[in-house]
Amino acid sequence: MTAQRDYAALVQRGLSLDLTRGKPSPRQLDLSDDLLKLPASYRAADGTDGRNYGNLQGLAELRELFAPLIQVPAEQIVVGGNASLALMHDTIVHALLTPLPGAERRWVEEPEITFLCPVPGYDRHFTICERFGIKMVPVPMNAEGPDMDVVERLVAEDASVKGIWCVPKYSNPSGVVYSDETVRRLAAMPTAAPDFRIFWDNAYAVHHLTDEPAELADLLALSAERGNADRVFVYASTSKVTLAGSGVSFFGSSPANVKWFLHNTSKQSIGPDKINQLRHVEFLRDAKGVAAHMRRHAELIGPKFELVDKVLTERLGDLATWTSPKGGYFISLEVPHAAEVVAKAKAAGIALTPAGATHPYGDDPDDRTIRIAPTYPELDELEQAIDGLAVCVRLVAEERGRPSL
Amino acid sequence: MTAQRDYAALVQRGLSLDLTRGKPSPRQLDLSDDLLKLPASYRAADGTDGRNYGNLQGLAELRELFAPLIQVPAEQIVVGGNASLALMHDTIVHALLTPLPGAERRWVEEPEITFLCPVPGYDRHFTICERFGIKMVPVPMNAEGPDMDVVERLVAEDASVKGIWCVPKYSNPSGVVYSDETVRRLAAMPTAAPDFRIFWDNAYAVHHLTDEPAELADLLALSAERGNADRVFVYASTSKVTLAGSGVSFFGSSPANVKWFLHNTSKQSIGPDKINQLRHVEFLRDAKGVAAHMRRHAELIGPKFELVDKVLTERLGDLATWTSPKGGYFISLEVPHAAEVVAKAKAAGIALTPAGATHPYGDDPDDRTIRIAPTYPELDELEQAIDGLAVCVRLVAEERGRPSL
Repeated sequence: MTAQRDYAALVQRGLSLDLTRGKPSPRQLDLSDDLLKLPASYRAADGTDGRNYGNLQGLAELRELFAPLIQVPAEQIVVGGNASLALMHDTIVHALLTPLPGAERRWVEEPEITFLCPVPGYDRHFTICERFGIKMVPVPMNAEGPDMDVVERLVAEDASVKGIWCVPKYSNPSGVVYSDETVRRLAAMPTAAPDFRIFWDNAYAVHHLTDEPAELADLLALSAERGNADRVFVYASTSKVTLAGSGVSFFGSSPANVKWFLHNTSKQSIGPDKINQLRHVEFLRDAKGVAAHMRRHAELIGPKFELVDKVLTERLGDLATWTSPKGGYFISLEVPHAAEVVAKAKAAGIALTPAGATHPYGDDPDDRTIRIAPTYPELDELEQAIDGLAVCVRLVAEERGRPSL
Repeated sequence: MTAQRDYAALVQRGLSLDLTRGKPSPRQLDLSDDLLKLPASYRAADGTDGRNYGNLQGLAELRELFAPLIQVPAEQIVVGGNASLALMHDTIVHALLTPLPGAERRWVEEPEITFLCPVPGYDRHFTICERFGIKMVPVPMNAEGPDMDVVERLVAEDASVKGIWCVPKYSNPSGVVYSDETVRRLAAMPTAAPDFRIFWDNAYAVHHLTDEPAELADLLALSAERGNADRVFVYASTSKVTLAGSGVSFFGSSPANVKWFLHNTSKQSIGPDKINQLRHVEFLRDAKGVAAHMRRHAELIGPKFELVDKVLTERLGDLATWTSPKGGYFISLEVPHAAEVVAKAKAAGIALTPAGATHPYGDDPDDRTIRIAPTYPELDELEQAIDGLAVCVRLVAEERGRPSL
């Protein structure tokens, strides 16, 4: 009955801790405080006045800075506002209302649209699909990315499959980095739908936790080599590089897709916030500047990931499994009766992303995955939260008949 | 043959002048250069960290600052990105894909959607309609706004009429301010469509050229009084207050519409750029600050409007008519054979918005309206351009058989 006693003590402490969202901590945001005083000059590299209207595609110097980091040629990048999520959402809106290159019709005219959703995955991707009535089919993730046998079969068989969500590097929430073989198969696979697209949300492209950055194969280039140039939509942002709410976002794709995208966004806006783009160019300078800045992030959040691993190891042993990612923002905890664990934690003042949120329709059929977001709290609060979470895991194991350790 | 000789001389000068778009001049943008060094603090008034994710509706202090200026209660305002055009575009996207309050179905399921377009009007409004296959019906403007007899008849008769575009103050391009009677009739009129909406693009709410600011009746309040609370979508922005490319935008409406709007945008974004919102609050401070700032704009552009009026009076007399607006960004020149005049001007190096752009489908049936945007060029260039334009008007009049003056 140790776990019950520990849980009663935990509840008595009246904690109020939040591990729900992958938010940078205030100290991480402090790293970019110079941005608040920039730009020193409102002139773009080509001499234009960054303060006025125009330049729908975004400043060349910013596109060139991020081109190697997100594996898209600068001329095939469009710079968006503060949210890559908006670029993803709006890409689907555009596809619903204006035919994609290669499409037979607008998606809104299709009897059914299906997206493949590698699980566990990112809840905000699933929310976009739900909004538009896009059917979601889960695909299991393994250590190399989504199970490509399943993906290849589904895209070949079913012409309603128009998309797949991928977070290919330090995946949300599993931390998996797609293997070269996975990327090659994604680039090459035959699809029944002529307008099938891979939504390549490279949210953690430069977000390494170790000195050995993961390498990701270049899906856009490989797809073009295999005759599938228009297959890939790349997304990225500086939300977790500079300021979470005030960064810049990127859309990258084939020339035909970029033309289609700009044709649509030209009806929506006269141009992006180029002053914020200049601010980012002055602050980050070049790829080396980005790498140095990301090392400072890693110094702040690396110890948080280590702490979670240490506490879970000490408290749970083999009662659960969890990931030890080399980058990104999440640890994925796999545990029986996840929903019960999350409920117990909530009752003890520890907020976790709802169990099931990592799966389409909030339905984790095995009820196993809990997403832990360790970046926002400072170390002492994080330790309390993970310690408390471990108590909840042990309590549920005990109540469900498995002895706590 | 004076006009022909003058035109030949004009062409010989090899001008390259641009009167196409309503852009602020660099000197106007200079008025807001302090913005580039702000905000001094990243803390919102409620203590939250403006650098992080969140606050989809936008900071309360910014909503409160603009509430009286755009005639929307602060709690019914949503702050958007740098472009109110995107808010308008996205409102229509949302209505196409998610039923509006009071709607029987999503607009994409309607056999036909019609928008009334007071003419002359703003070409970017018409472009949004064209993109989505929304049928546009022109309605003539008079000195008090759109011809309300026509509007009332069309909205009462035809349930496919779901919207009307209005620029109610210093209208683009006529400069007309909607009269109280027009606003009252818009608020009260019965409509066949239960989900009819007025797109109230109050782009020039505070953009006065004289010391006698035009007053506009409060459409949102009047509509609520008349039982049509959900009828109105208000839009505004600081694009022509602070920086054209880096301002903030506003959506305002009834509580039910705001809830619907936020429900939809919550799938699109985790929140707006709150640092830019703080920047604007620190810079503009309050309604008095906005008024003082707008007077500085008027000092810069007022003389440009006066110059156009002076040159046209001297050169054209009664060969044409034009507006003398008390605010906004445009002068509307009415002249026979407008398309020919624009073509002649273009051949002489004077770029004007294409004739017809002020009408749906680019079709000005009387071929009369030329939109002049006098704000961007400095006075000497503006004088050359208007002088040249007058030469073109006289040439066309001469060629078409009406003696030049």
